[in-house]
Amino acid sequence: EYTEVLLGKGGEETDKQMFRFTDHGGRDVALRFDLTIPFARFAAQHVGQLGTPFKRYHLGPVWRGENTQRGRYREFMQCDFDTIGTTSNTADVEIALVIADLMSALGFERFTVHVNNRMILNGLLTELGLEGEATPLLRALDKLAKIGPDAVAAEMVSRAGVSDRDAATVLALATGSGDTSLSNTDILDSVQERFGGNAVAAEGVRRLRELISVGADVGHPAARFRIDLSIARGLDYYTGSVYETFLGDLPGIGSVCSGGRYDDLAGLYTKQSLPGVGASLGLDRLLAAMEELSLLPAAATMASVLIVQFNSDHVGTYQGAAARLRRAGIGTELYPDPRKVGVQLSYAEKRGFPLALIAGPEEVARGSWQLKDLRASTQREVSDAALIDSVRAGDAFASAIRP
Amino acid sequence: EYTEVLLGKGGEETDKQMFRFTDHGGRDVALRFDLTIPFARFAAQHVGQLGTPFKRYHLGPVWRGENTQRGRYREFMQCDFDTIGTTSNTADVEIALVIADLMSALGFERFTVHVNNRMILNGLLTELGLEGEATPLLRALDKLAKIGPDAVAAEMVSRAGVSDRDAATVLALATGSGDTSLSNTDILDSVQERFGGNAVAAEGVRRLRELISVGADVGHPAARFRIDLSIARGLDYYTGSVYETFLGDLPGIGSVCSGGRYDDLAGLYTKQSLPGVGASLGLDRLLAAMEELSLLPAAATMASVLIVQFNSDHVGTYQGAAARLRRAGIGTELYPDPRKVGVQLSYAEKRGFPLALIAGPEEVARGSWQLKDLRASTQREVSDAALIDSVRAGDAFASAIRP
Repeated sequence: EYTEVLLGKGGEETDKQMFRFTDHGGRDVALRFDLTIPFARFAAQHVGQLGTPFKRYHLGPVWRGENTQRGRYREFMQCDFDTIGTTSNTADVEIALVIADLMSALGFERFTVHVNNRMILNGLLTELGLEGEATPLLRALDKLAKIGPDAVAAEMVSRAGVSDRDAATVLALATGSGDTSLSNTDILDSVQERFGGNAVAAEGVRRLRELISVGADVGHPAARFRIDLSIARGLDYYTGSVYETFLGDLPGIGSVCSGGRYDDLAGLYTKQSLPGVGASLGLDRLLAAMEELSLLPAAATMASVLIVQFNSDHVGTYQGAAARLRRAGIGTELYPDPRKVGVQLSYAEKRGFPLALIAGPEEVARGSWQLKDLRASTQREVSDAALIDSVRAGDAFASAIRP
Repeated sequence: EYTEVLLGKGGEETDKQMFRFTDHGGRDVALRFDLTIPFARFAAQHVGQLGTPFKRYHLGPVWRGENTQRGRYREFMQCDFDTIGTTSNTADVEIALVIADLMSALGFERFTVHVNNRMILNGLLTELGLEGEATPLLRALDKLAKIGPDAVAAEMVSRAGVSDRDAATVLALATGSGDTSLSNTDILDSVQERFGGNAVAAEGVRRLRELISVGADVGHPAARFRIDLSIARGLDYYTGSVYETFLGDLPGIGSVCSGGRYDDLAGLYTKQSLPGVGASLGLDRLLAAMEELSLLPAAATMASVLIVQFNSDHVGTYQGAAARLRRAGIGTELYPDPRKVGVQLSYAEKRGFPLALIAGPEEVARGSWQLKDLRASTQREVSDAALIDSVRAGDAFASAIRP
């Protein structure tokens, strides 16, 4: 992207971490640090053709020049989903539902989507007379999990210039929802009671109530979504809902799917109002977590069948069978060299193939195959004409078929 | 990647086009110009854990600082597939088969995979006493489609320092296969007759013969693969098979899927022999071609059903139904705002949804939906309990279901 598109959008930290250089045409360009800002720029440019409401998903690499650690790299993959062109809370609720469905589909059972709304934070800052310091206060608050409450309070004083007492008040309000004896409704009732007179805060509460209620209607367990007033998100562009997702078995790895509502972002590029809401799955961090939790499949192949290259004269027969099996949706690999059958079968076992097919000159002449079940160590001869059905009927195939 | 990994691997042109800069840690880094070299670097580093033979596919962006045109951008998406750890021609043949299957799966019927083998080119250059000039000669030859035979001959003389007569001989040999009255077998017989005494050229001929023969065994039409001795590929790292793929209806857009064998590439990073062969689909160029050939679907949505937001009080019911439909594999979108039904239906028609579901307070009370077929402009009431079956049974759904 042109540097001017990215600069100043995420905040001081993303500005500092940006990989920036001059291209062959002398243009000042930089590598995107997220997919949201390029999307807002693109949407602003093309909204006429796209029409609204507009939904999209986008998987791609982004770059941040920071220190690396487990699941955190300078180049990493984000998976974004967004709805733009509406301020309706329906879209905000749906993003939370997508996060929950996505995590379930990936095999997670114990996870919590923490939700908040900056309207609540902004409303209560207004009531406290601190609305002018909202940006540095929320930036400080976002570091809570990383640096702890004392350092956050200290940063609120030093960077936002608020009093020790105000910092303590904001921090107490934001972290109060961490009391696990409080239900989501308790938390929202309490905010409404204290700050409900502020229209912005009240709208934030209404939106979160709807999210909790629709989540229950759709059948999610009550613990799936958690009101967490301490969630602020580090990026300056969020204006409403914010989401972070924590794994029950590995909370320390941080949020694996985060996002929020950004109603003014595209306003930097277009005069048309182009509000949006979305979230992003951090694939690298998630994979690191899945690896640690043994949620990744052990097989090192996506294919179900290895065809042994018994004799290189028959490669046409082997590739013909592979083509038929693949067309039937059965992942198939042909061993590339005519090595000893034992070597090829040990490769198949190591990679986790459930089945192997072998045909030497005799089988080729008879129009048949030896079908080996590598887990049960059984073998039977099947006719070439019935190859696909025979492979499908194999117990090993039925139990090991790839999705 | 570190710049030293990329520099000098593709050739002088890719070196020139590289986006190169210094990162926050003072490291000299650059954006990859293809996926092959980073793969070779990665494979060399991790071959112990990967094991061989090893196959992978990889979709991702690459960057070249060159002039843009239709389907040719400075950032573009490559889709690579490779087999490493074997020099067997089985892998080379399979790459050609994958190209053909890939293009068919994308909806192309008229396309030709042009194949050649650098062993033939190297063999005949050796026979002509020009083996020392192979790199500049092949680089010049690669520009044939772009600049024409006269300019290629001129570049052979000026850059490779060969005589006018040698340039003309190489060019005549390479372009002789362009005579469409010659069959693949004619071309290979002719090479074998003239240069078959050279062991390298003879092995190149044997490998291409096997490719043509297995292609026929698998059932591909004879015109699918075409021996084309003028195909050299511009990247220096190719050592054997080379592939380019041209669309019958749009040859001028250039090759949409190209690749070849690179037996020495990983040798730059490891002492272990790590030969490989693969190809890369150029997604942006292909999409430009598909757009021009009207091969892209007209619908602007992947979903089959739009649920109208009749009344925002029922968002829980709407999202509940959307969740059930999606779990049944039926793409579903809920309109985010409770706008007039006509506005929402016109959005559905514009986006190409075949079906819409509407439920106002009466339907919600009755436990039913109005199911609208937007193409036939018909409507019927269906029960919520039978919702999925009713949607599936709809004619519009049956004819418009997304893959």
